[in-house]
Amino acid sequence: METRKEHDSLGELDIPKDAYYGIQTIRAAENFPITGYKIHSELIIALAMVKKASAEANMQVGLLSKKIGNAIIKACDEVIAGKLHDQFIVDPIQGGAGTSFNMNMNEVIANRALEIIGEERGNYNFIHPNNHVNMGQSTNDVVPTAIRIATINLLNKAIHEFKGLKSAFEKKAEEFDQVLKMGRTHLQDAIPIRLGQEFGAYAAVIGRDIKRLTRTLDNLKTINLGATAVGTGLNADQEYIKIVTRKLNLISGLDLKQAEDLVDATQNTDALVEVSATLKGAAVNLSKIANDLRLMASGPKCGFNEIELPAMQPGSSIMPGKVNPVIAEVVNQVAFQVIGNDLTITLASEAGQLELNVMGPVLVFNLLQSIDILKNAVSVFNKKCVQGIKANIERCKELVENSVGVITAINPHVGYETAARIAKKAIQTGRPVREIVLEEGVLTEEELDIILNPYEMTQPGIAGKELFKANDNAS
Amino acid sequence: METRKEHDSLGELDIPKDAYYGIQTIRAAENFPITGYKIHSELIIALAMVKKASAEANMQVGLLSKKIGNAIIKACDEVIAGKLHDQFIVDPIQGGAGTSFNMNMNEVIANRALEIIGEERGNYNFIHPNNHVNMGQSTNDVVPTAIRIATINLLNKAIHEFKGLKSAFEKKAEEFDQVLKMGRTHLQDAIPIRLGQEFGAYAAVIGRDIKRLTRTLDNLKTINLGATAVGTGLNADQEYIKIVTRKLNLISGLDLKQAEDLVDATQNTDALVEVSATLKGAAVNLSKIANDLRLMASGPKCGFNEIELPAMQPGSSIMPGKVNPVIAEVVNQVAFQVIGNDLTITLASEAGQLELNVMGPVLVFNLLQSIDILKNAVSVFNKKCVQGIKANIERCKELVENSVGVITAINPHVGYETAARIAKKAIQTGRPVREIVLEEGVLTEEELDIILNPYEMTQPGIAGKELFKANDNAS
Amino acid sequence: METRKEHDSLGELDIPKDAYYGIQTIRAAENFPITGYKIHSELIIALAMVKKASAEANMQVGLLSKKIGNAIIKACDEVIAGKLHDQFIVDPIQGGAGTSFNMNMNEVIANRALEIIGEERGNYNFIHPNNHVNMGQSTNDVVPTAIRIATINLLNKAIHEFKGLKSAFEKKAEEFDQVLKMGRTHLQDAIPIRLGQEFGAYAAVIGRDIKRLTRTLDNLKTINLGATAVGTGLNADQEYIKIVTRKLNLISGLDLKQAEDLVDATQNTDALVEVSATLKGAAVNLSKIANDLRLMASGPKCGFNEIELPAMQPGSSIMPGKVNPVIAEVVNQVAFQVIGNDLTITLASEAGQLELNVMGPVLVFNLLQSIDILKNAVSVFNKKCVQGIKANIERCKELVENSVGVITAINPHVGYETAARIAKKAIQTGRPVREIVLEEGVLTEEELDIILNPYEMTQPGIAGKELFKANDNAS
Amino acid sequence: METRKEHDSLGELDIPKDAYYGIQTIRAAENFPITGYKIHSELIIALAMVKKASAEANMQVGLLSKKIGNAIIKACDEVIAGKLHDQFIVDPIQGGAGTSFNMNMNEVIANRALEIIGEERGNYNFIHPNNHVNMGQSTNDVVPTAIRIATINLLNKAIHEFKGLKSAFEKKAEEFDQVLKMGRTHLQDAIPIRLGQEFGAYAAVIGRDIKRLTRTLDNLKTINLGATAVGTGLNADQEYIKIVTRKLNLISGLDLKQAEDLVDATQNTDALVEVSATLKGAAVNLSKIANDLRLMASGPKCGFNEIELPAMQPGSSIMPGKVNPVIAEVVNQVAFQVIGNDLTITLASEAGQLELNVMGPVLVFNLLQSIDILKNAVSVFNKKCVQGIKANIERCKELVENSVGVITAINPHVGYETAARIAKKAIQTGRPVREIVLEEGVLTEEELDIILNPYEMTQPGIAGKELFKANDNAS
Repeated sequence: METRKEHDSLGELDIPKDAYYGIQTIRAAENFPITGYKIHSELIIALAMVKKASAEANMQVGLLSKKIGNAIIKACDEVIAGKLHDQFIVDPIQGGAGTSFNMNMNEVIANRALEIIGEERGNYNFIHPNNHVNMGQSTNDVVPTAIRIATINLLNKAIHEFKGLKSAFEKKAEEFDQVLKMGRTHLQDAIPIRLGQEFGAYAAVIGRDIKRLTRTLDNLKTINLGATAVGTGLNADQEYIKIVTRKLNLISGLDLKQAEDLVDATQNTDALVEVSATLKGAAVNLSKIANDLRLMASGPKCGFNEIELPAMQPGSSIMPGKVNPVIAEVVNQVAFQVIGNDLTITLASEAGQLELNVMGPVLVFNLLQSIDILKNAVSVFNKKCVQGIKANIERCKELVENSVGVITAINPHVGYETAARIAKKAIQTGRPVREIVLEEGVLTEEELDIILNPYEMTQPGIAGKELFKANDNAS
Repeated sequence: METRKEHDSLGELDIPKDAYYGIQTIRAAENFPITGYKIHSELIIALAMVKKASAEANMQVGLLSKKIGNAIIKACDEVIAGKLHDQFIVDPIQGGAGTSFNMNMNEVIANRALEIIGEERGNYNFIHPNNHVNMGQSTNDVVPTAIRIATINLLNKAIHEFKGLKSAFEKKAEEFDQVLKMGRTHLQDAIPIRLGQEFGAYAAVIGRDIKRLTRTLDNLKTINLGATAVGTGLNADQEYIKIVTRKLNLISGLDLKQAEDLVDATQNTDALVEVSATLKGAAVNLSKIANDLRLMASGPKCGFNEIELPAMQPGSSIMPGKVNPVIAEVVNQVAFQVIGNDLTITLASEAGQLELNVMGPVLVFNLLQSIDILKNAVSVFNKKCVQGIKANIERCKELVENSVGVITAINPHVGYETAARIAKKAIQTGRPVREIVLEEGVLTEEELDIILNPYEMTQPGIAGKELFKANDNAS
Repeated sequence: METRKEHDSLGELDIPKDAYYGIQTIRAAENFPITGYKIHSELIIALAMVKKASAEANMQVGLLSKKIGNAIIKACDEVIAGKLHDQFIVDPIQGGAGTSFNMNMNEVIANRALEIIGEERGNYNFIHPNNHVNMGQSTNDVVPTAIRIATINLLNKAIHEFKGLKSAFEKKAEEFDQVLKMGRTHLQDAIPIRLGQEFGAYAAVIGRDIKRLTRTLDNLKTINLGATAVGTGLNADQEYIKIVTRKLNLISGLDLKQAEDLVDATQNTDALVEVSATLKGAAVNLSKIANDLRLMASGPKCGFNEIELPAMQPGSSIMPGKVNPVIAEVVNQVAFQVIGNDLTITLASEAGQLELNVMGPVLVFNLLQSIDILKNAVSVFNKKCVQGIKANIERCKELVENSVGVITAINPHVGYETAARIAKKAIQTGRPVREIVLEEGVLTEEELDIILNPYEMTQPGIAGKELFKANDNAS
Repeated sequence: METRKEHDSLGELDIPKDAYYGIQTIRAAENFPITGYKIHSELIIALAMVKKASAEANMQVGLLSKKIGNAIIKACDEVIAGKLHDQFIVDPIQGGAGTSFNMNMNEVIANRALEIIGEERGNYNFIHPNNHVNMGQSTNDVVPTAIRIATINLLNKAIHEFKGLKSAFEKKAEEFDQVLKMGRTHLQDAIPIRLGQEFGAYAAVIGRDIKRLTRTLDNLKTINLGATAVGTGLNADQEYIKIVTRKLNLISGLDLKQAEDLVDATQNTDALVEVSATLKGAAVNLSKIANDLRLMASGPKCGFNEIELPAMQPGSSIMPGKVNPVIAEVVNQVAFQVIGNDLTITLASEAGQLELNVMGPVLVFNLLQSIDILKNAVSVFNKKCVQGIKANIERCKELVENSVGVITAINPHVGYETAARIAKKAIQTGRPVREIVLEEGVLTEEELDIILNPYEMTQPGIAGKELFKANDNAS
């Protein structure tokens, strides 16, 4: 392999001649052989946007010449467009609070810019990774800013998928509005409900998650670009600080705003913890829904069998014809991953010290992964599961008719203790509630016709209230 | 012990004659000998408010007679006033989704109401725990509603303490605004900062936590009273459902609102998960701050020793004169407890199934504990630690003057590589940066006077920007 | 209230005249108004044992006079016997790494000892909390030692309960050995299994938990008594260090051993993390089992209804006759608490710094709680649930007979694809597998009699292997 | 792209003509577009070993012809040798409990075997993924078995790295044995200790982690191969079941043993939870050590500066000459990842239901990642950090000499209260303890020479014990 020489304050190293990255990237790649994964593409793009905004601002305030500035901007544009991403070889889990990622970017941009102006890679006398590409910047402001941009962009995509899922549940709620079925609490037969009511509840909770996720964008939009190393803004030109966020907004299309307190914004990661905690909450709800669907679809012969999930693949390598709720299961698993990631993020945030949280790399690795996989899982959940769910209407009805739970409606008419006695008898003997009530002469057939209407039981109110003289009952 | 007999659908038991609780409470106490703790007082009060509101509403719609209703209301008022709390003997961690707690309440209220109307305890023919006290209610709507009330009331107290802490940090930020000190990233000397800036950052992040916590009240205010067993409202009178929330608002002084979708509101615990996740975030921030204070106060001779925390108690049983940062340490520990509790709450919420989450008891036990201990810890943190912090001004100044970190300000003038070389030399030789810069003829004494002003370094901008001709530098 | 005056290095305070605790206890009680709970009784007893052992050792090496030593020992014996526990008023979650708890003990013992020798409480010239009761000790060796003793004692009780549960499952495994039922994977009908096999699996996993829990005792038995403040043993007499562990073993009845590396043993809490992690694992298994039981008991009419759990209490305040799996539910909740506590313990352990982990108080609070509640939950799970489980034999059988899962046994005879086609047809039409196989002429009635024997399917082997000529099949 | 047609029970699909995978792999790849990661290479190899062992066993019992069996074995050998791994395209987080991974393997092996015997890919009449490659197997026994093999192999590599780290700490303990420094508790100056003692403690705790990790191999070695779908062994030949584990041991070089209770071994994942929990404990200890090193290396001018970590890369893009403890920081982050992963694993394990845990994929994804990154982090920690640590001997000594903590040694001679008073004075005035003791006439110069020997303070015993007449002191 042909190489070129580069040096830094620790000495000299051979760099592959064609590489756009340089000596500090090589050091970092050797120092952190941890996961073998790549840094998230959205984060690479976001940091390139930051670099471009900085270059534009430094040019405008007269600190960066047009020649150098334009070359840097062109290089940034290429990275933003998805090029050169293979040059980002540092591990997402890295020491140094993102300095290695920032230097990887500074070196790639510098070398590509050198190429653009017709100089050789590594010839940093012309365009220097630190002096020019990183001008007026610190890892401690550019990386947190890039993290926020990537998080916002990815989160918006995820929210879009959540909206699709909510809509699918709403449609099912409508479709299943007349499907009477048994409600269960404690996995024990309770009282009738409509399947549509259940799906409506899923839509409702997802709706709140969408609101909660959307709300986290507020704090995310506050960035610390211009803060440099510890939030005091040292080495960033005062005019630059004033204009750089505006530049970045034009590039990113977002409405970011500079933090009022840059020291605070540099050391605290609470906005990211907030996103993760909200994702975790959403994951909990999705997992609960997936569990419900798996329960209701249990069977086909030996379970609840109230609904049917779309068959997506053969379920077993040994049991022919078996179809498993694989999409719901992957939703559960993604939820577990997101909950675990939230813990890692929590730990990383708590470990911040003084002017900086150096655990940012593992934090953002987990945060972007959480958003990504939740987005993907919600999408397949919607398209490959929820949209195709069918109700087993007859089975649902049959279960209601055989159940003892309808006894609850009789309760206001005969009192809790009498009702409990009848329920017990019905369960023990397997005989219908109606039959026993009649046999014991507790209520008449006409009264029972009014009271024991299962569909009515799914609506608010005391079934057959008109039957009792309020005064008696209210004694 | 004198006893009375009571029976339920499982049989008959002896009850202590003087007890206000009854047979179902006894069963539950025997079934759940888990923690030995008591149910939180705020939750007992909140459920009594719900019972009172229900009784009022049932009276108004003519289902409950004045005599019985008024006796129930009077009994509720006593519990709300803090009486009879020793009669709540069921364990906070209990099976049955709170039915035991609800029945403990129904029995205590019934027996106290019986006493009020001059009947014997246990004489449920007159006032029945289920038929009268629990009229139109289910555990599944009254307990979740009570949980929300207790959470709101406790949370408001906690937010009050957070505001006090924020204010204390703001005062310290002002007090320490001129205290120049070394900023640190990676625990390594970075560049100067002012102690006031650090305390300002603490105030800022606590401020965001206050906003986040306050925001969780929104979803908390949505209650499912009237939903009864599964959210369909079966057995609750339609008129009752319309008025009961208003009654409850008058009693509680809160602005609760009935959920639009009662099925959703009965099965989902996301509003509680949201509170816990937000508490967790706040705990993370508090723990980080406590860590910072402990670091800056490390010493007195062998540590940073930049600040002094108030001495609250002798620090050691063996090392005389030792004073430890005990309040900061208890803040850390409370944070860890809150983070652990959040996990329990997450697990409990995820385990909800179909129409109900039966893991409510452990969820609310942890949630109320988290709010409580965070409230208490924030209060002592404020009063017994933060308010009394003193800056060791001379020590802070001395550290800045001895540090190499000021080299950063020279960077824009001489380039990163030259600056790095000088920094290395300064660290290795122990000689001041200024001296080496002069020796190497890189900058003049006059230039250094302008550039190396530590106080200026704590403000945005390039120190000595006027010194360089922009065109040259921007080559 | 009558008071006496006491002073320490921070000043003077009024102490209730009758209190056995003193000034440092008062300070601590005021500094840490966190949970309102009490320190665990087992921990108080354990620390009193340590104090007694230290006093005996100090007497033997001639550092403590007989008069003072004997008084201290007598006072310790009283605390060990359960007396004076109301004098321990410091909060379990406290700053200072347990110094407040240790000083609470030192003061109670000193004052009780003073009383024993006929002196007034607070008259520390005669018997001093630090100089005499704490002689040769530091919080940093006595509290960790006491924690280990309390943990061992409590853990042994918990293991006893686990053994009871394992035995109950084994009995049920035997009782249900012939109960044929449908096995389920993915909640979907799989192939037949016997109920006894399922209960046998529960016994087996609990058996491994017992082994794992027992194994954690090894590291717990290593104590750091004699290490004093940082593990170097400063201020503890060399002879004392040699004999004090032996003394403690005689008092506690345990076989503790002194750590080879006392510095290590003083700063690391890994043995406690190990216990908690093992408890967490056991909690996971218990929760899974509780979930299984709740699933199999779901119904009675609209669920699996394969087993019946003992009815422990009425299940609902509104739905008469409803019986819920309350004991299984409390097991789930305790599991969630233990898992959450494990996180708190993890965080507390990770936060250790240099020579000491100051987060010990919250760690041990959670650890003892975890053991306690798991012990209690396992006990009620055994006695109030598992022992009384009944199999619904007919229902189990009926489900197997109606299922399609038996198709798997046909698989080796006809190949996966043919079998899958038949299974699909059986599910869609609701017709028995047998019927379709016959109709399609795939196998004869005689062959099916051999192959489709459900009981045989629950044993290893290819049903009807004798039917196929190996060569053909193995083509 | 040229394609071939394949069908399964859900229909027909186009498969890239050159692909070794088939229709079920394609379905799975489309169903689970979750992480974009690949399945761990060790797991692919392990499953190929299982397939090979099964083929050998089925051949031996006469169920698989030589021709087919040998072709399958040859294909397995290629995968074991690392070939064809690019054909494994299913996502590690997948629904279906690993069926997709198993079918991906079955299809790749079948198609490669077809190629070997000169048939076209997809021509499953000759060699069928289910009937031949998966003969006598279920996903539910082969995948759990493969997981155990992969875990054991990876864990052994990780343990090797832990041993290297332990050894490095031991060498440093020896090297630093005479380096006197200040011990710290609560980050406050305590009493002297030797740097070697601190490093010895790190070696000791890592040593216990090695033992704990090694111990988890026991339960890992128990496999359920032969259990098929639910642990009953249906469709696996009885002779096959007896010999297949032996075959697998010959292939893998491990000493696996078949579970006594295959139903238990099929549904429970406790052995994996045990590994993860133990890794978590080790991560906690590593993180604590990394924190200690970062603390002791804080500075160089404004921190503890007691040790120097090797400089691995420039620390800052803006602050020249700054060197950060990047390797220690990556250790912290890996620890946080492992702790988070442990939670995901815990959740996945708890979610097992009845005969199977369908959350296996996310469980094993996290488990193998945890082992991998911990292995990698321990390796770089050892080689790029610990081995190169240097002690700043003079600085350490200077801190001890300036400290007040030596007062503790005086304690036994003058009593706690006098000592506390002197300590307070020393801190307030900044004057040496020795000077004040002399001034106050508490001890003589000769006595202090004996008592205040810092090196002696790092050894067990009462410094200057010979000075006091035991009787007086023991009054």
